[in-house]
Amino acid sequence: MLHNSDFFSQNSKFISRFNFFLTILSFYLAIEFRFFSRNSEFISRNYDFFLTLRQWIAVESDSSDVTKRSDLHRMMDMTAEKLRLVGGSVEMVDVGMQALPNGSSIALPKVVTARFGEDPSKRTVCVYGHVDVQPAKKEDGWATDPYELTDIDGNLYGRGASDNKAPVLAWIHTVEVYKALNIDLPVNVKFIIEGMEETGSNGLDDMIVAQKDSFFSDVDYIIISDCVWLSRRPALTYGTRGNCYFFAEVEGPKKDLHSGVYGGTVMEPMTDLIGILGADLLGKILIPGVREAVAHLSDEEWKMYQDIEFDLESYKSEIGLSQLMYSNKVDLLAHRWRHPTVSIHGIEGAFSSAGTKTVIPAKVIAKFSIRQVPNMDPAVVEKQVTDYLHSVFAKRKSPNKLSITMVIGAKPWLADPKHPLYEAGKAAVKRVFAVEPDLIREGGTIPIARTFQDVTGKSIIMLPIGGFDDGLHSQNEKISRYNYMEGTKLFIAYLHEVSQIKKY
Amino acid sequence: MLHNSDFFSQNSKFISRFNFFLTILSFYLAIEFRFFSRNSEFISRNYDFFLTLRQWIAVESDSSDVTKRSDLHRMMDMTAEKLRLVGGSVEMVDVGMQALPNGSSIALPKVVTARFGEDPSKRTVCVYGHVDVQPAKKEDGWATDPYELTDIDGNLYGRGASDNKAPVLAWIHTVEVYKALNIDLPVNVKFIIEGMEETGSNGLDDMIVAQKDSFFSDVDYIIISDCVWLSRRPALTYGTRGNCYFFAEVEGPKKDLHSGVYGGTVMEPMTDLIGILGADLLGKILIPGVREAVAHLSDEEWKMYQDIEFDLESYKSEIGLSQLMYSNKVDLLAHRWRHPTVSIHGIEGAFSSAGTKTVIPAKVIAKFSIRQVPNMDPAVVEKQVTDYLHSVFAKRKSPNKLSITMVIGAKPWLADPKHPLYEAGKAAVKRVFAVEPDLIREGGTIPIARTFQDVTGKSIIMLPIGGFDDGLHSQNEKISRYNYMEGTKLFIAYLHEVSQIKKY
Repeated sequence: MLHNSDFFSQNSKFISRFNFFLTILSFYLAIEFRFFSRNSEFISRNYDFFLTLRQWIAVESDSSDVTKRSDLHRMMDMTAEKLRLVGGSVEMVDVGMQALPNGSSIALPKVVTARFGEDPSKRTVCVYGHVDVQPAKKEDGWATDPYELTDIDGNLYGRGASDNKAPVLAWIHTVEVYKALNIDLPVNVKFIIEGMEETGSNGLDDMIVAQKDSFFSDVDYIIISDCVWLSRRPALTYGTRGNCYFFAEVEGPKKDLHSGVYGGTVMEPMTDLIGILGADLLGKILIPGVREAVAHLSDEEWKMYQDIEFDLESYKSEIGLSQLMYSNKVDLLAHRWRHPTVSIHGIEGAFSSAGTKTVIPAKVIAKFSIRQVPNMDPAVVEKQVTDYLHSVFAKRKSPNKLSITMVIGAKPWLADPKHPLYEAGKAAVKRVFAVEPDLIREGGTIPIARTFQDVTGKSIIMLPIGGFDDGLHSQNEKISRYNYMEGTKLFIAYLHEVSQIKKY
Repeated sequence: MLHNSDFFSQNSKFISRFNFFLTILSFYLAIEFRFFSRNSEFISRNYDFFLTLRQWIAVESDSSDVTKRSDLHRMMDMTAEKLRLVGGSVEMVDVGMQALPNGSSIALPKVVTARFGEDPSKRTVCVYGHVDVQPAKKEDGWATDPYELTDIDGNLYGRGASDNKAPVLAWIHTVEVYKALNIDLPVNVKFIIEGMEETGSNGLDDMIVAQKDSFFSDVDYIIISDCVWLSRRPALTYGTRGNCYFFAEVEGPKKDLHSGVYGGTVMEPMTDLIGILGADLLGKILIPGVREAVAHLSDEEWKMYQDIEFDLESYKSEIGLSQLMYSNKVDLLAHRWRHPTVSIHGIEGAFSSAGTKTVIPAKVIAKFSIRQVPNMDPAVVEKQVTDYLHSVFAKRKSPNKLSITMVIGAKPWLADPKHPLYEAGKAAVKRVFAVEPDLIREGGTIPIARTFQDVTGKSIIMLPIGGFDDGLHSQNEKISRYNYMEGTKLFIAYLHEVSQIKKY
C-alpha cells in the first residue's frame, strides 16, 4: 500500500486532473489486496493471477516440435476460454495447414481473436501476443521443471513465463479488472493471440491480410508486449531485428559409416559442413553485400544510446563472460540492436549425445541465423548467403550434396519514438514507476510487428514488462512477481493514456 | 549338403591325410542339420544358434551410455552363463570403476574369462571378443528395431550382430559342437570377453597386465574375430589402425542465450568451435608433425594391394557416393588402412533436434578422432593436436575457454602375414571356402590387439567372419546367415590347423 500512496503523493496534480485516476488507484488496491492478503474476497472469487499462469506454464506448447502439436492446440483453447470468461467476444480462426519437411502436413494452431467493447467514440487498441514457447527440457540445465511454475525468491520460473505467457495474461487481467469492478474500458480492446511465434508466425501473415478490412478496420493502434526491459528501468521498445534462419544440409553416403572402416576413403559431410561454416566470411558476416545494406548510425542515435541506463559490468556478470564483443556502451548496444549478427545454433544428424561414437554421419544439417536490420532485405540475404556457401562448397570439390534453405525470413521493424503512442507510454511509465522510460530497441525478432505495419498501416508500440534478466529462450526462464504485478498496472494506466490521444 | 560334398571331393588329399577331417565333416553335417531341418534332435535339445543370438541382440549393451550400464552388466552375466553351459571353467573378473566426467564413478562391466581343456601337450589359443555395442536408435534410420534380431533375405539385422556378438557366439558354438559330439578339442581354448570395447576397453589393459603370468602364461596364440572381410572373398587381417578420440570443449556464457537478445554482443562458443575445427590444417591433418610419422608404403605392400580383390565401383555403390577420396585401388586401400584420417563425429551441447531454435549454446563439445597408423604415437599426437587447436583458438582472442581432452588413445597394430598363425588361417579358409584368403588390414581399431602384443608378447591373428557390407557402427547392422554359419565352420577348421603348427 505504501508504494501506491507514495506514488500518488508525488503525482498529486494527476489526481486532481483525472478523476479516472482514482479508479485506477482502486484497481491497484484491488490487485494489491488480491495478492498480498490471503483472505480477501478476491481470492475467494478465484481471481488468482498465479493460478492461471501456473496452468498455462504447465502446457508444453512448443511450436517447433510437431509431436507437441496437440498441447499447442490445447493452449489455444485455454486462451480462448480465458478470454471468454472475462467477457470477450472470442473467435478461433483457422489459419490452415503447416507443410512438414517430409512432405506431409499438420494443422496450424488456430489464432485466437477477442473483442472487448465496440464504442465508436473510443479509440480501439489491438493487443498482440503469443502462447507458444521455445523448446525446454529439464536436462538442458533447468534448476526446476520448466513446465511447473516455481516461485523462488519472488521470481516465477517456467518456460514461457516471460516469453510470452505472463504478459498476455497481464493484458487479459487488465480487462478482467475493469470488468470485476464494473467500470467501462476507456478504449475498445481487441486481442490477437497466436501459437506459432517461436517458429515464424506461420499462417498469421495471411490471416492479417485476409482480415485487414474486417478485424483490423477499426483498430487504431497495435500493442505488443513480447520483449523485455534493458535494465531495472522500465523501457519502451521502438525497433526489433528481423531474422533469416537457414538450414545448410550436406548429404553424402546413403547411411552413417564407421569412421575406422571408411575414414580416409570418403569425403565426410561433417567435414564439408564445418569447413563451409568455419569460413571467416560467414562468421564475421563479410559475405559480399550483406553489411553494405546496414543503415548508418546517426548522431542523434549515438546521443540516445549514450543516455540509456545500461551497465556493461552487470551485463557481463549476468551472462558470465569476462569480455564482450565491444567494450563501450554505444558500440555494444548498436551491435545488439541495429547491426546484423550470425549465430550457429547446432547441427542435426551428427552425434550429439554424451560419450563417444566413431561414426561418419551420412547427412548433417547446420542451423544458423542472421539477424536482420534496416535496410537489409531477407530475400536478398537469402541469395547472398546461398550463393556464398555454394561457392565455398564448390571449391571443396566434394561429391556430397549441399542444399541451403531459408526457413524463416523475418524483416526488422522500426517505429518513431516521438509518436503519440510512445508519449502515452512515457506518461504511463511515469505514473506507475515514477521514472522516465528508456527508449530502446530489441535484438530479437517479433516478425509480426513488421507485418502489422506493412499490411494494416497502423501504428505499433512495444510495451515490455519482462525483466532484463528473464532468460528468454534460455534455461531457467522466469518473470518476477514485481514485473508481472507492476506490469499489469502499467497496462491499466496505458489504456487510460491512449484514450487521451488526440485524433490528428 | 551339396556344398560340403563338393568341397571334399576337391580336397580329397586332406581327407586321406586327416582322419580328423571326417569328424569336422560330421560337425558340418550336424550344423547343417541343426539349422535346415526343423525337426532334428538338435533343435529339440535347444541347440539354436539364432535363439541365443536373438537373446544377445535384445540386450542394449551400449558401453558409451552410462544409463545402459545395468544392461551391459546383464550382457556379461549372459555371456558367462552361456560359456558355463557349454562346459567352460568361467570367471568374471572385476576390473574396477569408471571415472565419469562429472566426477562420480560407476562399476565397469566384469571381464568374462573361460577355459576349455588344460592338456599341456596341446597348443592353447585364447579367443578375444566383446559383447558391448555402439549406440543405436530406431529413429537414426533403422528399418527394423535395432534390438530385435530380424531375418530378412538371409541377413540377420540388429545392433551388434556383426560387431561382435555373432562372431563371439560362433566361437562358443565351435567348442559347443565338440562337446555335443563328445570329441576332444584339438587345442586348449580360452576366452576373454569384455564389455567396454566400443569406448576404449577401459579396465582391460590393467587386467591383462595383472594376469600376464597367470591366465596368459600358457596361451600360445591370441585370436580376434572383431573385423570383417573386404569383399565376398574371405580374408585374414594383419593390421589395424589405432584411434585418438578428442573432446574439444568451448565454454562461454554461464547459460544458453537467446540469439536475438544477445547476438552481436558475445563471442559465441559455437562460432569459436566451428572456427577452429574448420581450419584446413585439421581437416587435411596438416597439423605440424602428424603426417611425418607415417611409415612409407613399400614396393611389396604396393604389389600386395594390387592383387587384393576389391572393386571400387561396388564400394561406391555400397556407400552411395559418386566419387571417393582416391580413384585407384592401391591409393584407396592405403588410405583406408595405413594412413591417418580425421572424422568429426558431432557436437554435444548445441541444438541438434529437428526444427528451429534461436539459441546461443553456452557450452559445446566437438567429438572428433584421428585414426593412428605405424609409426604414430598417440601421446605425441595428443600434444600436436592440443597445441595446434590452442594456437588457432588463441588467434581468435575469445574470452571463452577451450579445453582439449584425448579420451581414447589407442595404438595401431601390425602382424607378420607370413607367420605360421596366418599360414594356418590360409589353410582353414581353403578348406571351408576353397579359395585363397585376401591378406588385408583394417581401417578401424581393435586397441586391445596392440595391448595383447605389447603385454603378453604372444602372436595374434585376426580371423574375421563378418561380411564387407555388414554396416558396423551404422544403421541396419547385420551379419548374413551364410557368414555366421560358414564362419563357425572356419573356426572349427582353424582349431585343427593351429593344432598342427610345429613348435619352433
